[in-house]
Amino acid sequence: MRVAAGATLLEAAQRAGVVLNTACGGAGRCGKCAVEVAGRRVLACQTAVQGDAAVLVPEGTRFFEQKILEEGISRQAAVEPAVAKRFVRVARPSLQDLRSDAQRLQAALKEATGRDDWTIAAAALRELPQALRTSAFGVTAVLRGEQVIAAEGGDTTAELYGVAVDVGTTTVVASLVDLGTGRTAATASMTNPQAAFGDDVISRIHHSEREGGLAALQERVVGCVNELVARLCGQGQVAAGRVYELVAAGNATMQHLLLGVPAGQLAQAPYVGAFSAGVNAAARELGVAIHPAGNVYVLPGVAGHVGGDTVAVALATAIRQGQGVALALDVGTNGEVLAAAGGRVLACSTAAGPAFEGARIRHGMRGATGAIERVRIAADVEIEVIGGGPAAGICGSGLIDAVAALLEAGVLEASGRLLAAGEVPPSGPEAVWRRLVLRDGQKEFVLAEAERSRRGEPIALSQQDVREVQLGKAAIRAGTEVLLEELGANWRQVERVYLAGAFGNYVRPASAVRLGLLGPVGLERIVPVGNAAGAGAREVLLSRSARRLAERLAREIEYVELAGRTRFEELFQKNLSFPPNG
Amino acid sequence: MRVAAGATLLEAAQRAGVVLNTACGGAGRCGKCAVEVAGRRVLACQTAVQGDAAVLVPEGTRFFEQKILEEGISRQAAVEPAVAKRFVRVARPSLQDLRSDAQRLQAALKEATGRDDWTIAAAALRELPQALRTSAFGVTAVLRGEQVIAAEGGDTTAELYGVAVDVGTTTVVASLVDLGTGRTAATASMTNPQAAFGDDVISRIHHSEREGGLAALQERVVGCVNELVARLCGQGQVAAGRVYELVAAGNATMQHLLLGVPAGQLAQAPYVGAFSAGVNAAARELGVAIHPAGNVYVLPGVAGHVGGDTVAVALATAIRQGQGVALALDVGTNGEVLAAAGGRVLACSTAAGPAFEGARIRHGMRGATGAIERVRIAADVEIEVIGGGPAAGICGSGLIDAVAALLEAGVLEASGRLLAAGEVPPSGPEAVWRRLVLRDGQKEFVLAEAERSRRGEPIALSQQDVREVQLGKAAIRAGTEVLLEELGANWRQVERVYLAGAFGNYVRPASAVRLGLLGPVGLERIVPVGNAAGAGAREVLLSRSARRLAERLAREIEYVELAGRTRFEELFQKNLSFPPNG
Repeated sequence: MRVAAGATLLEAAQRAGVVLNTACGGAGRCGKCAVEVAGRRVLACQTAVQGDAAVLVPEGTRFFEQKILEEGISRQAAVEPAVAKRFVRVARPSLQDLRSDAQRLQAALKEATGRDDWTIAAAALRELPQALRTSAFGVTAVLRGEQVIAAEGGDTTAELYGVAVDVGTTTVVASLVDLGTGRTAATASMTNPQAAFGDDVISRIHHSEREGGLAALQERVVGCVNELVARLCGQGQVAAGRVYELVAAGNATMQHLLLGVPAGQLAQAPYVGAFSAGVNAAARELGVAIHPAGNVYVLPGVAGHVGGDTVAVALATAIRQGQGVALALDVGTNGEVLAAAGGRVLACSTAAGPAFEGARIRHGMRGATGAIERVRIAADVEIEVIGGGPAAGICGSGLIDAVAALLEAGVLEASGRLLAAGEVPPSGPEAVWRRLVLRDGQKEFVLAEAERSRRGEPIALSQQDVREVQLGKAAIRAGTEVLLEELGANWRQVERVYLAGAFGNYVRPASAVRLGLLGPVGLERIVPVGNAAGAGAREVLLSRSARRLAERLAREIEYVELAGRTRFEELFQKNLSFPPNG
Repeated sequence: MRVAAGATLLEAAQRAGVVLNTACGGAGRCGKCAVEVAGRRVLACQTAVQGDAAVLVPEGTRFFEQKILEEGISRQAAVEPAVAKRFVRVARPSLQDLRSDAQRLQAALKEATGRDDWTIAAAALRELPQALRTSAFGVTAVLRGEQVIAAEGGDTTAELYGVAVDVGTTTVVASLVDLGTGRTAATASMTNPQAAFGDDVISRIHHSEREGGLAALQERVVGCVNELVARLCGQGQVAAGRVYELVAAGNATMQHLLLGVPAGQLAQAPYVGAFSAGVNAAARELGVAIHPAGNVYVLPGVAGHVGGDTVAVALATAIRQGQGVALALDVGTNGEVLAAAGGRVLACSTAAGPAFEGARIRHGMRGATGAIERVRIAADVEIEVIGGGPAAGICGSGLIDAVAALLEAGVLEASGRLLAAGEVPPSGPEAVWRRLVLRDGQKEFVLAEAERSRRGEPIALSQQDVREVQLGKAAIRAGTEVLLEELGANWRQVERVYLAGAFGNYVRPASAVRLGLLGPVGLERIVPVGNAAGAGAREVLLSRSARRLAERLAREIEYVELAGRTRFEELFQKNLSFPPNG
């Protein structure tokens, strides 16, 4: 395996098809990508390749276990994006060669590629005369399908980028990818500004049906994507005009709104979308601020509310390839669940609510600097804050940890009722029960005192926050169990659970089980995979064969509609409470 | 042959592959399309089909003679446009059929067309949910290639239109064509508003190289096309949203400017274009105001300044199919010439100047109402004015007639010198020589006295006007002779001369020969064909096989560059004077 000097070990591993854990997206924060070089332990994402080196990858650092990685390896290794570049020298015109610029470019491309069916888009024709004449007739053709979509003066083949976007209901995450090397050059995320029109998909759909509502929602999400593209390009020091493709994955509603397609029928029985196959649209048409001749590819979805993000999770986790029963839970505002066994894959979508993304939680926030991401309770409450320093709020994984810890400490009852201060068993440490306070008449549990908070007030978990968590986890758990029943399987048979979250945070498996988000399953079988939808979108951006595989998965995954299903309602009611202590 | 009741005999003839003379474009003005029905002579363009009828087409009414028509017949008969419509009934969604709208449409289209590879454009997805739900799930798919480009509620299959445009340097002519029947529903023309930036292609190119110049030129011509589309739709009572394709033909410069492609290299040796193949561009991208998902197809050109309009003339005249030597002259601001013999076709472009289109001529105008289109001199000057009534100016065919008549009357010398009043031989009729006057120190010949003029002043031909005609006709004649020499042929061998003009006016063959625009060739061999470029563009709009034929012709026609060719200069000088009387 050879890589350019200066590449990180993480990138080198990716190129070699070895996927490392990178919960923080290569920011040097999570410590999950630790490897050994010459006996020294280093973070792969922070260590540049200086010369020949043997790298030992410890068991725990590999992203997936070997049997699932196999498909992953081949897919990750193949960098074969839908857009390519070719630098060619074009013959100069003369009285002996009166062919048009386009004809001379086509001849040069035929020589370079062996293909003689290149057509040249009108936009590329606009660039061609100058590109040739300002660069001594050396020009880079940007190729997509059988078309030259752009013509750039000189050799720009090293500058070929794409952006993969996971368009979540609450959070939008985007990565800038070097389509030449496969390297992820930058990652950024933002709150979906459609939140101004409601924080779940149903409110968005209702807004989209008002006069001008659809256009406003599309404008917001496109604006958000453009803002992310601008940030990524800033971080990666890449011109936006060198980004030629954007691949987007989202739930069905997000995909409809991104494309400006009416979504009303998704909110009415029988809940069908306008489309579910993958869609190609011109960046120019959508107003997406990459190269104007660039393409936007929206991943295929399955049916109903199960959109391209779930297909991306299925792709990234290679869930169908595993043996035994496997689950993948994408915990966002919509909780999508995949259940696979014997080559079959079932999918459903549950309205989990935005709690796990920090919304509708009083002090909730995205998994950014300042977010409480870990909570333990011993003699007192211990918190970990992203980036260190005082806390600004609590993110999804912190929330799950906090609820699990409160249950374990007996401060929270299985019913979801937060004890009042006087009720706390005297056996508990005083430091803990003193955190139970009343605020505006509502019970809450203080996670960070005012002096450890950036808000100037304590950061706490309220009774209402707990109720939001209960609703969300019950929906996901019930959906999962419906799928297991459809497969004729149960929790004991589950060999693997992939826990994916919209913003790539690391959920602690023990907390997820303690909460009852998952049923009884061995902790060693739970694999938090971060933003798997984003990872799947990146694969599709990088590889045409991954794109074909996504299209096939989308057709073959079986959709299970939960709406109006009595069994789902039963399981939802049953799972509203938390598992009892013991 | 069956046609719908109400269609004109002209349309019925077109459908039967019999092309009639229609110099006035079916306006009932030229009288060229006279046919006999039940012994009565009627104009085919003005007579509606009422029931079964036998129609006799006199020899002189047929557009081309039989041997050339043969190819024309098959091409005219085939109405097979690039865009089609299909009305289908789509299954309603239910809990038992959760396929997306798009999937259910694809299934219905598969049943209707036998094809299962229809993709649905993003723009069509935006329309689909409403189109289905407001029309009881009966929807019309607009199809292009393998794509559904639009979805319309209900059955709109009867409303399928296209527009063919001949983009001339001076005049832009457009036709609205019913792509279901092949019928031309309306025709309209306008002065090319780019004229504000110069009246020949070289001035336009120079302007395009200034800051913002290219954008301004493109904006003007697109605005002109949009104005014509609006007028056509008004005349034809068709919504612009039911026009799905626009086919444009122009000289190389006009085609570059329409597409916004830099044209500078066309004004510098060795005079190559950015492109010469046919170009497809999205109407939305160009700002062309037809259906936003519509397509604009720009005809392929040959090389240098010989653009798609010349290919359209070659197509419409089927010039390659003729026996012996054939010529086609497209007399516009650029005079393009085709010469064919033994299956070879040569082409060149000459800078004829805008005189024949009425520009740079003091009282010049397009061939519209009020234009003097015929001039004869006997006891006095006799003029024919389009639409009757007083004259407003003189158009190209009137100009050619006038100069020919003045030469014949001896008022104009072979050198191009207009005699002064006193010089007129006393043998001429006094009424004629009294028309020679001085105005602002320049000699001129009055064609219409002030009382027969709408201008409130006499309409006259000035010495300067005659000079413009000399330059134009010498350029075209010299270009024609260069091509004949390249073919090893001479005027005596010429069996057919097609005289085409940008605005479809009827040039009198005798006048064209008297002027020396043509060399010695029998008048019976000269066939004025009106706006042949427009006719070719219409064929390409109506028929995919005509489009393929145009692409082949464009590749196979041999381009002859006149610039810097000594022989052209010699022939130009030699042909500046008019043929002597006698």
